[in-house]
Amino acid sequence: MMARRQSSQAKEKFVLGIDFGTESGRVVVVRSRYGEIVESVVVAYPDSVIDERLPGGPRLEPDWALQNPKDYLLVVEKGVPKALKAAGVKAESIIGVGTDFTASSPMPVKSDGTPLCYLPRLRKQPHAWVKLWKHHAAQPEANRINEIGRERDEEFIRLYGGKYSSEWLFSKLLQIANEAPKVYQEIDRFIEASDWIVWQLTGRERRTTCAAGFKAMWVKGKGFPSPEFFRALHPLMEDVIGTKLPEDYYPLGSSAGGLTPEWARKTGLKEGTPVAVGNVDAHVAVPACTVVEPGSLVMIMGTSTCHMLIGREKQMVEGMCGVVADGIVPGLWGFEAGQSAVGDIFAWFFEHGVPDYIHREARKEKGPFASVLEKRAAALKPGGSGLVALDWWNGNRSVLVDVDLNGVLVGMTLATRAEEIYRALIEATAFGTRTIIEAFDSKGVEVKRLVACGGLPEKNHLLMQVYADVTGREINLADPLQTCSALGAAMHGAVAAGKSAGGYDTIYDAAQHMAKVQKLAYKPRREAHEIYNQLFKEYQTLHDYFGRGSNDVMKRLRALQRRHRAG
Amino acid sequence: MMARRQSSQAKEKFVLGIDFGTESGRVVVVRSRYGEIVESVVVAYPDSVIDERLPGGPRLEPDWALQNPKDYLLVVEKGVPKALKAAGVKAESIIGVGTDFTASSPMPVKSDGTPLCYLPRLRKQPHAWVKLWKHHAAQPEANRINEIGRERDEEFIRLYGGKYSSEWLFSKLLQIANEAPKVYQEIDRFIEASDWIVWQLTGRERRTTCAAGFKAMWVKGKGFPSPEFFRALHPLMEDVIGTKLPEDYYPLGSSAGGLTPEWARKTGLKEGTPVAVGNVDAHVAVPACTVVEPGSLVMIMGTSTCHMLIGREKQMVEGMCGVVADGIVPGLWGFEAGQSAVGDIFAWFFEHGVPDYIHREARKEKGPFASVLEKRAAALKPGGSGLVALDWWNGNRSVLVDVDLNGVLVGMTLATRAEEIYRALIEATAFGTRTIIEAFDSKGVEVKRLVACGGLPEKNHLLMQVYADVTGREINLADPLQTCSALGAAMHGAVAAGKSAGGYDTIYDAAQHMAKVQKLAYKPRREAHEIYNQLFKEYQTLHDYFGRGSNDVMKRLRALQRRHRAG
Repeated sequence: MMARRQSSQAKEKFVLGIDFGTESGRVVVVRSRYGEIVESVVVAYPDSVIDERLPGGPRLEPDWALQNPKDYLLVVEKGVPKALKAAGVKAESIIGVGTDFTASSPMPVKSDGTPLCYLPRLRKQPHAWVKLWKHHAAQPEANRINEIGRERDEEFIRLYGGKYSSEWLFSKLLQIANEAPKVYQEIDRFIEASDWIVWQLTGRERRTTCAAGFKAMWVKGKGFPSPEFFRALHPLMEDVIGTKLPEDYYPLGSSAGGLTPEWARKTGLKEGTPVAVGNVDAHVAVPACTVVEPGSLVMIMGTSTCHMLIGREKQMVEGMCGVVADGIVPGLWGFEAGQSAVGDIFAWFFEHGVPDYIHREARKEKGPFASVLEKRAAALKPGGSGLVALDWWNGNRSVLVDVDLNGVLVGMTLATRAEEIYRALIEATAFGTRTIIEAFDSKGVEVKRLVACGGLPEKNHLLMQVYADVTGREINLADPLQTCSALGAAMHGAVAAGKSAGGYDTIYDAAQHMAKVQKLAYKPRREAHEIYNQLFKEYQTLHDYFGRGSNDVMKRLRALQRRHRAG
Repeated sequence: MMARRQSSQAKEKFVLGIDFGTESGRVVVVRSRYGEIVESVVVAYPDSVIDERLPGGPRLEPDWALQNPKDYLLVVEKGVPKALKAAGVKAESIIGVGTDFTASSPMPVKSDGTPLCYLPRLRKQPHAWVKLWKHHAAQPEANRINEIGRERDEEFIRLYGGKYSSEWLFSKLLQIANEAPKVYQEIDRFIEASDWIVWQLTGRERRTTCAAGFKAMWVKGKGFPSPEFFRALHPLMEDVIGTKLPEDYYPLGSSAGGLTPEWARKTGLKEGTPVAVGNVDAHVAVPACTVVEPGSLVMIMGTSTCHMLIGREKQMVEGMCGVVADGIVPGLWGFEAGQSAVGDIFAWFFEHGVPDYIHREARKEKGPFASVLEKRAAALKPGGSGLVALDWWNGNRSVLVDVDLNGVLVGMTLATRAEEIYRALIEATAFGTRTIIEAFDSKGVEVKRLVACGGLPEKNHLLMQVYADVTGREINLADPLQTCSALGAAMHGAVAAGKSAGGYDTIYDAAQHMAKVQKLAYKPRREAHEIYNQLFKEYQTLHDYFGRGSNDVMKRLRALQRRHRAG
């Protein structure tokens, strides 16, 4: 994917995509005509995820997860020059820059954009730092937001499938108001890291509709909930809109402005190079998977899975993470749903459930044990193990939105083997995806085919075939698979540049030229699909029994565990 | 336990116990005064369990399990002289012989006791051999027996807790009538191996009430079901009672007769040495565990668990395997119940569920991995894992009597560790035992304390403590633990000999002198018991949901598996 064709690159136009992940950032140089990634450079965050102790500061409470905004700037400063040099591409050929970020990862800053954690007097105050998406210490605040939201019948409750998450912007801001009111009063702007990085590069604070819509209750044409709602959350928050958060947001693919002289100097790019408004990683992956129309569900599959879908109409779908106008592509509704553990379940099984005979066979074959397990599991027939599982090892995001649900395995006998359990876990995650698809389908939001990207589908043929068989739908794999967010960021950079500069006027055009899928597609097999229809019925019955209140055994077990774990 | 005090043994009296197990027989020499086992000799069956191919004959169908009666005789011929010699005990000091056997393990013989499989013309006919207790190929016959039994409202249906088992005598005889009517017509007597061995040793066919009552529908004072019932099963069987089975049965501990001259010669014992009527292994273990009164539940714990209980009144208890007058000790009612997999579940987990980190730690500590697992599981607190399981890896014997039920594990998270699953499996088997105790309790058959014997309790402190905590009852361990059936057989030999010969007149007297429990007792801990009361409620809810028809998912999974396993 990183072929070098330096001879012909002088006349060609390129865009940069910068993908800010959880532990590192990636800079890609992309040929704007065909979307080919000609160079890719990864820069690790020196402070990575700060979840034990602030750099030189105090120990953090459990469930905290912070980041240092300096690390984001380092990715640009080190990564861009390195990528340009490696690609042999000159600054004149770079027509635009697009970025994408984990979300919601908001941070408190002063009115000039200076992060509060840069200020010596606040350096040792945890609330002054970026709250990474996986900061989970604001659950009481999320509960409060949902309680008041439901009492007041606020629209966001419905738009977020019934629940506002502890991971999102206002839960994290309310946590600051509750726990550190003095820090709260120091905040001039509370901003997603995705918007802050664009502000840094362009000198203009132009925030994206995407993060605002999916994480911060903003509704196109309506704005935010009223000051009364925010006052009910916390007296300090009454005027939050218009002060700490702006009222205006900018559509995906629009230009936030040109690169500042300072950042042109630091990166070697030309001053004024257009920079697209910020993007969210999962959302920007959608057009990079060729999807700009309704009917195709994009699955970003890794430790967890994000499901992204485009629809013509607003629909309130059970347990979705959000429905936002122009949230994925302009002019259409963007839907997001998710499974809170997928690859994580397999990793758990690899660590805690693989017996000696699998390891012995791997040693004999001088290969990884995961391959032995995959080979054996692939040799099994659908329905042949007599097992069915619920994939709730980390709760259930969609459609039940319940973190206190846990895994179930039904049907073990004395003849049950490890590869049968492994396959049952794979099938369970596929049933989880099918449950989401059926929730969309039941509201008329159609899913005709699936497109997968992310780290998990790579080389995992069994997984993808089971998903095709279980869902009864063809699955395409994005190309590239693992760097599709970075490609998506670059595509938005090309749209920010515009056709006249060698880019594209719309994300539709960009997707047509720059995005593609692999030739290999997974097609559902009729007989397997029919057997899985029967197993899925069993999954649904157990799903509803354990997940919808018939038997809240999991919640009681969890409560018992909390009381007695320490003894 | 096998101390030799040969100097004083000349005046002392001894009894022999011969315990016929599944793969071998054991001969013990026991001091009749205190019950001390002074010698123990094991003789393996040369043909062991015949479940693949008849010796020199055809391949067997799945689920068949046969034995060669010659192997039983070999145990006596080789084992008795060897044990006597090793113990330094003379034939004159042996006052009686008792035996016990697996059951129901019936066999077809001629009128002189010759097994049909000895006849050259029937040697290659599988139906001519002993059908071992775990021969499971007569399920269709058991179904037919239950169907007709229920139609005709036969009492045995209630006495066997609602179901006659495929393992028992008439299921196996009906299989012969159905599949090999010519062999059926060759049968003069159809007899439990436990009764046949006594016939061989004494020359008299005197059958025990115990096997007849627990396995063959015989009811004290009433006899068998009517000829009409047997004709409904199969026309050939109309006259089975009085021809192939006798009408008279002899109580436990009575003498079947004296040793024949032939067997005196073969064993070195004195001609005429009293031999007790045959015993069933689980039942004979009860007085060897000191239990001859109501109130104490004996658990014979191994791959599966048998529960034996004595009651003052006949009660129909859900899912028990039988209630028989004088079935365990004379004058009282004997109850049997069971769990179809206990040690087998742990063995399954050791083989299929123990991950590398446990094996690594075991290598580091240069010890067995089971010890690492036990140590880690013992360090956990009740309720601390957030897990609850159903212990149905091999179906459920009591109280649901359903072979198509399977295991369930509920509550896994990404933090769940192998030792937590192991402990949850131990707890699940304890909940299974508590379910049986509560079924007895609900009918007024009291269980005040538990006495455990068998291979599983040995050195398994965690297991026994969990059972005490879960049931809220003190547990004693029999002494000896693993050879209590052999001791029980010897005790019945001492009763057959009688007090005047240096034995005892009743099993009550024998138990008082010959049986004992270990000093170590497991006492329930209050706090743990209270937590387990909560977990047991969860177990009961899941037990009833999966086991009583609310969700027959396991049966459907099993049917799907049977259809699709082969593809």
